[in-house]
Amino acid sequence: MTYRELTNQIKQKKSFLAVGLDTDIHKIPAHLRETEDAVFVFNKAIIDATHDLCISYKLNTAFYEVYGSEGWDILKRTIQYIKDTYPDIFVIADAKRGDIGNTSTMYARAVFEGLNADAITLSPYMGRDSIEPFLQFGGKWVILLALTSNEGASDFQFIRDSERQEELFKSVLRTAQTWGSPENMMFVTGATKAEKFKDIRAIAPEHFLLVPGIGSQGGDLQKVIEYGKTKDTGLIVNSSRGIIYASGEKDFAEKAREKALFLQMEMAKYI
Amino acid sequence: MTYRELTNQIKQKKSFLAVGLDTDIHKIPAHLRETEDAVFVFNKAIIDATHDLCISYKLNTAFYEVYGSEGWDILKRTIQYIKDTYPDIFVIADAKRGDIGNTSTMYARAVFEGLNADAITLSPYMGRDSIEPFLQFGGKWVILLALTSNEGASDFQFIRDSERQEELFKSVLRTAQTWGSPENMMFVTGATKAEKFKDIRAIAPEHFLLVPGIGSQGGDLQKVIEYGKTKDTGLIVNSSRGIIYASGEKDFAEKAREKALFLQMEMAKYI
Repeated sequence: MTYRELTNQIKQKKSFLAVGLDTDIHKIPAHLRETEDAVFVFNKAIIDATHDLCISYKLNTAFYEVYGSEGWDILKRTIQYIKDTYPDIFVIADAKRGDIGNTSTMYARAVFEGLNADAITLSPYMGRDSIEPFLQFGGKWVILLALTSNEGASDFQFIRDSERQEELFKSVLRTAQTWGSPENMMFVTGATKAEKFKDIRAIAPEHFLLVPGIGSQGGDLQKVIEYGKTKDTGLIVNSSRGIIYASGEKDFAEKAREKALFLQMEMAKYI
Repeated sequence: MTYRELTNQIKQKKSFLAVGLDTDIHKIPAHLRETEDAVFVFNKAIIDATHDLCISYKLNTAFYEVYGSEGWDILKRTIQYIKDTYPDIFVIADAKRGDIGNTSTMYARAVFEGLNADAITLSPYMGRDSIEPFLQFGGKWVILLALTSNEGASDFQFIRDSERQEELFKSVLRTAQTWGSPENMMFVTGATKAEKFKDIRAIAPEHFLLVPGIGSQGGDLQKVIEYGKTKDTGLIVNSSRGIIYASGEKDFAEKAREKALFLQMEMAKYI
């Protein structure tokens, strides 16, 4: 998917919402839990209920790997369902991979070809040659961790380099721009640190930012927009649990739609 | 597996070799490529030919994910074969994962319970709460990336913190020791930077170090031992392609054994 296609979708839907399909069998409604292929059935219902309100689905691979080969198959079928039914939607494999060159090529093939995802999240720790193999795939995207939304972010991401005179997450933002462009690279920047978005935009004025942490992690949508939005929007804001577990009853898909609609309407004010 | 069990195995076998089962269908011998379940058949042959010379198998998950759910199944069956047949052997899932708490728990269950691996490699970028969930699993190990063997290691791992007065990889070594102990945590330290092992041992004198990069990546075994060995050895040295692709002919398992034997005999001199 190209930058323009993604941007057009945002304009048409007046939304930059990603719905996180972090589906846990123990958290889906009880009446579904016993049915065959419950995780896929749940995903399909959420997708059908929200596809016109969001521009992306983000699937966290951990939630599928936990079910082994069957889980990988559900992951693949869920993406296939999205691509077959709502082909405009941007699919993110939230996998946080990163390894040396020849291994990265394997991960890229697994996610871009095997799963047919549009994008993969990656960890920057191993540097350039762990990222570049992913950038060789035309129409696909790397989403690099820069500033994450968890507590542990403060352990290393704020380490201040004496030579570069800036924190590690800023060095990641700066250095990674020599590897990819706003046409094939985005950054993960947590919503729980919205006041940092000003600094982030000073370094990466055009790149899309994938923003987790709205809702259950306490991030503030309005601040993210205020500091993070570009002329083309340049934001993909993710909500997972807040949407998909809005209700544990038979109305789960309807309630998920309500939550997604609330966020979409907030977003529409700024597009 | 406990620290003592691992150390005993090293003493008994006079080896601290890990064989990397990074099996690529395009690189295995032609006569095998056409057989059913070729990757598993290849792995089994390599394992049967080398199990008494190595103390660990390291399976890089990318090489299995590339085959989708079938690949995940081969990964699982390979580990099951090792555990059923040679139960003393330490199995590493080289997955380089790392995500926020609840997701990390899913990854831990996928790898420690689903795959029954003894250890997983993790990226430190997201900090404490991305690592600690893995440390909750008794008898299981975290192997944290500190100093990797690839070129891109220099992009961020040597960033020098002005306050801590040391490079990022040293901060990782130091900080991570407040999360886990030498009984449940190891570090990845690349053999291509053997001269750094002195610094590493000054910070982490007891922890096991997992050392990739011997052989195809040009690392020097002797230097690694000289600077990295502890009284309990404290090293797991990995070789992947140099062993498993020693021959592309029918004698591939025999040649793999020869390569493994060569490394084991080198190692025996120091145990």
